[in-house]
Amino acid sequence: MEEFDLVVRGGTLASAAEVFEADIGIRGGRIAALGHGLGRGREEIPAKGMIVTPGGLDSHCHLEEMGQDGTVHEESFASGSAAALAGGTTSFICFLPQWKGHSLAASAPGYEARAAASRADYSFHQIITDPTPEVMEKELPALVARGIRSLKVFLTYDPLRLTDAQFLEVLASARRLDAFVTVHCENYDAIGWRIQALLKAGLTDPLQHAWSRPPVVEREATHRAIALAELVDQPIQVFHVSCEEAAAEIARARARGLKVWGETCPQYFTLSHEDLTGADFAGAKAVCSPALREAGENARIWRRIQDGTLDVVTSDHCGFSFATQKRVAGGSAYGTGAAVRRPDGMPAFNAIPNGVPGIETRLPVLFSEGVSKGRIDLPAFVRLSSANAAALFGLAGRKGSLAPGADADLVLWDPDAERVIRNDGLHHAIDYTPWKGMPVKGWPSVTIRRGEVAVREGEVLAPPGSGRFLPRGPYALARGRGVVPDGFDAALA
Amino acid sequence: MEEFDLVVRGGTLASAAEVFEADIGIRGGRIAALGHGLGRGREEIPAKGMIVTPGGLDSHCHLEEMGQDGTVHEESFASGSAAALAGGTTSFICFLPQWKGHSLAASAPGYEARAAASRADYSFHQIITDPTPEVMEKELPALVARGIRSLKVFLTYDPLRLTDAQFLEVLASARRLDAFVTVHCENYDAIGWRIQALLKAGLTDPLQHAWSRPPVVEREATHRAIALAELVDQPIQVFHVSCEEAAAEIARARARGLKVWGETCPQYFTLSHEDLTGADFAGAKAVCSPALREAGENARIWRRIQDGTLDVVTSDHCGFSFATQKRVAGGSAYGTGAAVRRPDGMPAFNAIPNGVPGIETRLPVLFSEGVSKGRIDLPAFVRLSSANAAALFGLAGRKGSLAPGADADLVLWDPDAERVIRNDGLHHAIDYTPWKGMPVKGWPSVTIRRGEVAVREGEVLAPPGSGRFLPRGPYALARGRGVVPDGFDAALA
Amino acid sequence: MEEFDLVVRGGTLASAAEVFEADIGIRGGRIAALGHGLGRGREEIPAKGMIVTPGGLDSHCHLEEMGQDGTVHEESFASGSAAALAGGTTSFICFLPQWKGHSLAASAPGYEARAAASRADYSFHQIITDPTPEVMEKELPALVARGIRSLKVFLTYDPLRLTDAQFLEVLASARRLDAFVTVHCENYDAIGWRIQALLKAGLTDPLQHAWSRPPVVEREATHRAIALAELVDQPIQVFHVSCEEAAAEIARARARGLKVWGETCPQYFTLSHEDLTGADFAGAKAVCSPALREAGENARIWRRIQDGTLDVVTSDHCGFSFATQKRVAGGSAYGTGAAVRRPDGMPAFNAIPNGVPGIETRLPVLFSEGVSKGRIDLPAFVRLSSANAAALFGLAGRKGSLAPGADADLVLWDPDAERVIRNDGLHHAIDYTPWKGMPVKGWPSVTIRRGEVAVREGEVLAPPGSGRFLPRGPYALARGRGVVPDGFDAALA
Amino acid sequence: MEEFDLVVRGGTLASAAEVFEADIGIRGGRIAALGHGLGRGREEIPAKGMIVTPGGLDSHCHLEEMGQDGTVHEESFASGSAAALAGGTTSFICFLPQWKGHSLAASAPGYEARAAASRADYSFHQIITDPTPEVMEKELPALVARGIRSLKVFLTYDPLRLTDAQFLEVLASARRLDAFVTVHCENYDAIGWRIQALLKAGLTDPLQHAWSRPPVVEREATHRAIALAELVDQPIQVFHVSCEEAAAEIARARARGLKVWGETCPQYFTLSHEDLTGADFAGAKAVCSPALREAGENARIWRRIQDGTLDVVTSDHCGFSFATQKRVAGGSAYGTGAAVRRPDGMPAFNAIPNGVPGIETRLPVLFSEGVSKGRIDLPAFVRLSSANAAALFGLAGRKGSLAPGADADLVLWDPDAERVIRNDGLHHAIDYTPWKGMPVKGWPSVTIRRGEVAVREGEVLAPPGSGRFLPRGPYALARGRGVVPDGFDAALA
Repeated sequence: MEEFDLVVRGGTLASAAEVFEADIGIRGGRIAALGHGLGRGREEIPAKGMIVTPGGLDSHCHLEEMGQDGTVHEESFASGSAAALAGGTTSFICFLPQWKGHSLAASAPGYEARAAASRADYSFHQIITDPTPEVMEKELPALVARGIRSLKVFLTYDPLRLTDAQFLEVLASARRLDAFVTVHCENYDAIGWRIQALLKAGLTDPLQHAWSRPPVVEREATHRAIALAELVDQPIQVFHVSCEEAAAEIARARARGLKVWGETCPQYFTLSHEDLTGADFAGAKAVCSPALREAGENARIWRRIQDGTLDVVTSDHCGFSFATQKRVAGGSAYGTGAAVRRPDGMPAFNAIPNGVPGIETRLPVLFSEGVSKGRIDLPAFVRLSSANAAALFGLAGRKGSLAPGADADLVLWDPDAERVIRNDGLHHAIDYTPWKGMPVKGWPSVTIRRGEVAVREGEVLAPPGSGRFLPRGPYALARGRGVVPDGFDAALA
Repeated sequence: MEEFDLVVRGGTLASAAEVFEADIGIRGGRIAALGHGLGRGREEIPAKGMIVTPGGLDSHCHLEEMGQDGTVHEESFASGSAAALAGGTTSFICFLPQWKGHSLAASAPGYEARAAASRADYSFHQIITDPTPEVMEKELPALVARGIRSLKVFLTYDPLRLTDAQFLEVLASARRLDAFVTVHCENYDAIGWRIQALLKAGLTDPLQHAWSRPPVVEREATHRAIALAELVDQPIQVFHVSCEEAAAEIARARARGLKVWGETCPQYFTLSHEDLTGADFAGAKAVCSPALREAGENARIWRRIQDGTLDVVTSDHCGFSFATQKRVAGGSAYGTGAAVRRPDGMPAFNAIPNGVPGIETRLPVLFSEGVSKGRIDLPAFVRLSSANAAALFGLAGRKGSLAPGADADLVLWDPDAERVIRNDGLHHAIDYTPWKGMPVKGWPSVTIRRGEVAVREGEVLAPPGSGRFLPRGPYALARGRGVVPDGFDAALA
Repeated sequence: MEEFDLVVRGGTLASAAEVFEADIGIRGGRIAALGHGLGRGREEIPAKGMIVTPGGLDSHCHLEEMGQDGTVHEESFASGSAAALAGGTTSFICFLPQWKGHSLAASAPGYEARAAASRADYSFHQIITDPTPEVMEKELPALVARGIRSLKVFLTYDPLRLTDAQFLEVLASARRLDAFVTVHCENYDAIGWRIQALLKAGLTDPLQHAWSRPPVVEREATHRAIALAELVDQPIQVFHVSCEEAAAEIARARARGLKVWGETCPQYFTLSHEDLTGADFAGAKAVCSPALREAGENARIWRRIQDGTLDVVTSDHCGFSFATQKRVAGGSAYGTGAAVRRPDGMPAFNAIPNGVPGIETRLPVLFSEGVSKGRIDLPAFVRLSSANAAALFGLAGRKGSLAPGADADLVLWDPDAERVIRNDGLHHAIDYTPWKGMPVKGWPSVTIRRGEVAVREGEVLAPPGSGRFLPRGPYALARGRGVVPDGFDAALA
Repeated sequence: MEEFDLVVRGGTLASAAEVFEADIGIRGGRIAALGHGLGRGREEIPAKGMIVTPGGLDSHCHLEEMGQDGTVHEESFASGSAAALAGGTTSFICFLPQWKGHSLAASAPGYEARAAASRADYSFHQIITDPTPEVMEKELPALVARGIRSLKVFLTYDPLRLTDAQFLEVLASARRLDAFVTVHCENYDAIGWRIQALLKAGLTDPLQHAWSRPPVVEREATHRAIALAELVDQPIQVFHVSCEEAAAEIARARARGLKVWGETCPQYFTLSHEDLTGADFAGAKAVCSPALREAGENARIWRRIQDGTLDVVTSDHCGFSFATQKRVAGGSAYGTGAAVRRPDGMPAFNAIPNGVPGIETRLPVLFSEGVSKGRIDLPAFVRLSSANAAALFGLAGRKGSLAPGADADLVLWDPDAERVIRNDGLHHAIDYTPWKGMPVKGWPSVTIRRGEVAVREGEVLAPPGSGRFLPRGPYALARGRGVVPDGFDAALA
């Protein structure tokens, strides 16, 4: 048996199912063998005392996005992917836009090419905002053929939202093409109505962002998305679940046998209304949608992580620097309604760009708050951070796995490392982190991406462009059966 | 103490709360006294062995409606109200239309005047299809001041449906004006998508009407209506609940403390898919929306009547004769989508006018299937047939009551009368009844409206024009508290 | 028409269904007529501005109970019934005991005779602690024949508790005899286990009484009682529901179509853990079972009153004076486990007699917290305070009613009377009230019992012995159908 | 790197998390390596086209049990373990009895020694029927120290049932000792009451076994077991869940954050009432407890397997031959109530020994109905058949795993093998199988136990005595927090 390229020796391995000690032999960028006393590698990394997990897969993040007006997101693929790797994430899925009235091809010329600068492996969800026959019947099949097999739809935001009719069109197309659908669930009209009422009442602080989209707004859209997916018999994932009310709808759907999945993000189990207040407009830093909830909600989200209702944790990384974006009215296409400037020059809550940066902190926060504090075990950490997303998004066997044949994406965690999160310790391009000051226990010591050491003790070694595009297979789970009555099925096409 | 105008003597009285024996003394059209051995009346009706209930209030029926094109519904106020009285219903609430792009005033000129031909007392729900500021801020307050205090909105049907934003507008206006809101809950886009798929597959029979709007479509819209009402903190009634899935949403809402009420109709607890089939296009007779469900659903609707989730039973009388309407494509504004004619000349399911005639059979069917079969007791019958609607729609103390001061609307039921329903025994103008052939036990022997014998043994004595318009008071139930956060309330105005 | 004995003139009447203005004409102790401008009475009581309700029926209270050792409860029939009348309660149901190993007859010789001293009308629930064939097949039918048609069973308390087998025996007997069953639901073994652990840990304060029987203990027994009643197909009422967890079980049962009813008491919607603390052992005053819950539970009990899950409010009056009983270890048969005396001479929590006095404050507290504060309307008040209990316990048409033929039990409420509850303003024999210091709005001004003024402005006029025993009819509600499989029914006998 | 003892080459491996292709290198009875192109083994098994799973762990079966009267179960360790291995099960957990009034040591002298004849690896659950201080404080700690860390309690059966007080004692002891508790949940008294009624009515057929213990009886005990475990803050597994009503209680408990787990068996998702009928008393073959349910219940159990509520599938193998046991009244200690002989000489339903033989068919039936029919995927099959039980019962890392270090227990499944189940193709000692005639797709071709080929194409090669006792570690899942109030925790000890 030939020599390995690399052997990670003696670590405590955590897969999606179990924890065990073994050496990992790597050859050609893939895991070639797991075993006790594996043969030599040209390179060896001692991992005694380390926890070795599959590299993280962040299936929901925004990098270097281009607005319809040509402006470009300040987090580039190079900076964002450096942050990802430093935080233990070796691959990610970001978004191809579609602008209403435009074809997919015309919506983001050059974006895929820019993504080639990534240091981590990457793929795309295709956003659909205008499901014309041309798009759904011509462009989409070609995209799916290239391995871009997941769609993202929004039920809110002016430039992005779909009507129910359009959403049904997307669901039916996805069903035909064996693609998967992810959904941002908030009721657009309700948010707009609340925003107008709040602005009219002169209530414009960042905290009012949360008042403008309370849990009922998210619950409504979650139930609606589930109902429509049920009708079409198409699996979906509900993105960034922030509250028990929405999570309960997902659990109810599962108990009816539906293929409905739920994602959440660290902001929803660690931050709350309190983070939306603070001197000097600091609350703007925590403005994201769905909004942060009251403090008690964090524990409820943990419970839904523990009972499996929410089974993927992503960053929804969407960084806007505080100095240049969060304090500037109308800086983003993702605000809702007319951009209002307040007397103090700050934007009203609805004009603050939505999003928090978290691509690097996602896994350390989940490891620390989850594993180190005893809320979840290591296999659950692996499922939440990579394996479940890999299964849903057609990367099973390649990502999120320690099995022979899988890409050798590995993170060596020092489970005893203690640090306090500071923004200048992070690698992203954003000027703040909402987790500033949070003490964590457990941090990635070494990140290996396809058999190469990409990060060692915080130093990013992987150069821009070393990441690869990931063509993806179909959603791998058995298709359930919806409520379609007999005789009707053929009519779906 | 002066003589009574009329004494109903010796009956077994059933109020919304209890059953007792007493004479009823009537003076000036109102109940003046209840008692044992009441003094003489100028007229006396012996009621020994009879069940005496308050006259029925049918809070949801369609009479002599005028289409936007000037066509008039074939069931006139004179014929429909004769049928109502013969079936034990002494007052009803029908609908004032609004056509999109039109003011309320311009939408049905003369309709209120035509209603004056009614033999039974009557009021209106105002349909809102276009909640412009002009309508909501100018016309609606005037309407409410005239005692028309309930609004009806549709979440489906091309010419009628509201967007969520418009629905929120209506809810907020109703809250300010202390008006009540009723809702037709079905997801418009989902129905349209299903219809297109069915038509494309060549599936056009009346039964496919049910396939085109399965329970999930009703459940979705019911949940959405509740969520939006919850946001605005406004009580609503969900019209014509046809299935457990939708009823369960109402029950869930109540358990959260919301003021959400549910109505159902006899078609939903006695008819089913089977009635949508039959030779010679007979299934068209049972086409209504929401659609009839599978047979097992009848029992579930009864259970929700018994547990109080569905607490008003109306007819949703909407008669279209079989010969002249149900077999004619596009005869109605209430079909959905393009009217398609089939090779056999019959309309495709989506072009069959929606609605069943039931204003006369509503109470006999409820009495027979409910009281005579032991499913409900007499006070429940009174609550379902009149008292609960009176409370919700601002007629408490006047209708649905046997208390002194109430209008002397009374029905003397012969609880042992057995008959088989035949259309030629009914008084409506429609050429069929979907309950044809159904044996019932219990039938109104005498109907008294404001102290006058309006029907005696099937003979309608009340002349056209003897009914009166009923100005109504506010929804009388304590207002709950929605999810509106502190500080936000003032902004609602 | 002859003169009335008494006319209550011009009041605002509240029945279980509605509110209306009318005179009430009384003859022979019964309501003879309701009406506007009724004829003269030999006596007249002006009631303008007053709310007139049916007299309260307290279907759960303990008066002059005799211990197995011959000791007698300090609240006599004379004192307790005076308090009842003063608080607007004109009839009550207390308990006939059975001691294990004894026949019903031998268990409380003379108790029925003592009850004849009552100033209010009265009846009994028969407690069953030892359902031997002799008792169930011989004694019980005779009791039912005398109009004692409800049984009370305990699932906890050493001398009272039934095993599941015994409970099934009682349920099956009740089904055969058309009797009704009420249940004290707490898990005996669980409480015993907790008490031992707490005592062992030296935790003996009154607050630990609540710790010893947390909500899960009540929820368990409630679910079990429902399950067994479901099996036997027998309606039951769950006594004194104290928490949402138990109430939710009742709501779940109703949604399955079961005839399961829930009672609560003012202590559970107004008092909480806080009342179990206080200097000088004051917390002992609030020791009752089920125990008071954390403060937030009050609002949840209100919600379950509002949604109809809890539809009867009783006092569970069970007075033990603070000086002579609550501070004396082992004063009661109803403590649980060995009576322990603490170093300070006070009893450990488990040896404090269980119960709070509330027969007089029940309705004023419910009126003030419910009606005056807008939580419930007047008909709901009537249902909760008398009408629903009358229906369940076979007194419909006689008590809880304003209809002609009903006993003329009336309460004239001054809805604007404001007072602060003080023990020396009450008529019971107990030396404290747990509602001391509570401000209330609304108080009974006049109480009429069978046409006689029993209390006027706090002065009790009805003499001891003027109350009457109430033979009762069967539970009047339609019997549901349990889970009994086909062919099995006959075997129940 | 040294040679392997055995290499399983080229199979498609299924772990609890994923499916991948790899060779398995075995050394010293353990998996030494997984990889592509692993080095040579002294022995090699080609597995191309085969599915390779971890060997099954049947955590609930009855073998060679000895009655209190010295009679011995006809299924010996030698025969039962041969059947297990032939069906792909390489280890099992059976039961150490305790007889009431006896110590653990005295209850089954020699039983552990007899178990040494097993061909498969084995462990024991300790049944507790009499939790005296001597047993719980002296014997149990010693047992736990020997690696017998799970207790089994019965809430029904005369000789076995615990009172709630005893069950609490067991739960508290388990909590202190870090042992796990499994529970047979049926209400003893309810079953007894139903049996008496059925026998009295002359209803004695095998089908009446199901009538005697309907779902409500199982639901009640399941809820009670959960409530008591919740109180003590102790994880439990509910054994052999047969119906949705019980499964729903488990799901409700999980949503509250409790550590409550559910097991089911193939009889509950494949058999039904129909199997309890048939000529010549054939229904007796399917008598087990809980009883088989109506046919529709199978699908509901599958749904609860799919949603993860029921996450372990065992056989509950408890074989009684038809000729010698099932047709003989009173042949078993596990009948309930007095053994009645019918006129035809057959036992009444309650005297038929309870149990079905299934140790060999468990995995083929699960594979065929689950994997081959698309209801579950292969990782789910592994979780249900071995990995989840290994985690709950302290065998994680050793059994149910393909990771290096795990025991080399492997099954090579031929996924295309089709056969019809016949009893003469099975290896157990019982004269029938309830799955006779069932076609299955997928069958174990080779079973490897600790690196040795134990079965090849149906031929059992492992000799009696080659199995080993498995000392087990603690339940490995994070302990939740029960409802214990502050300050109370210490009192638990």
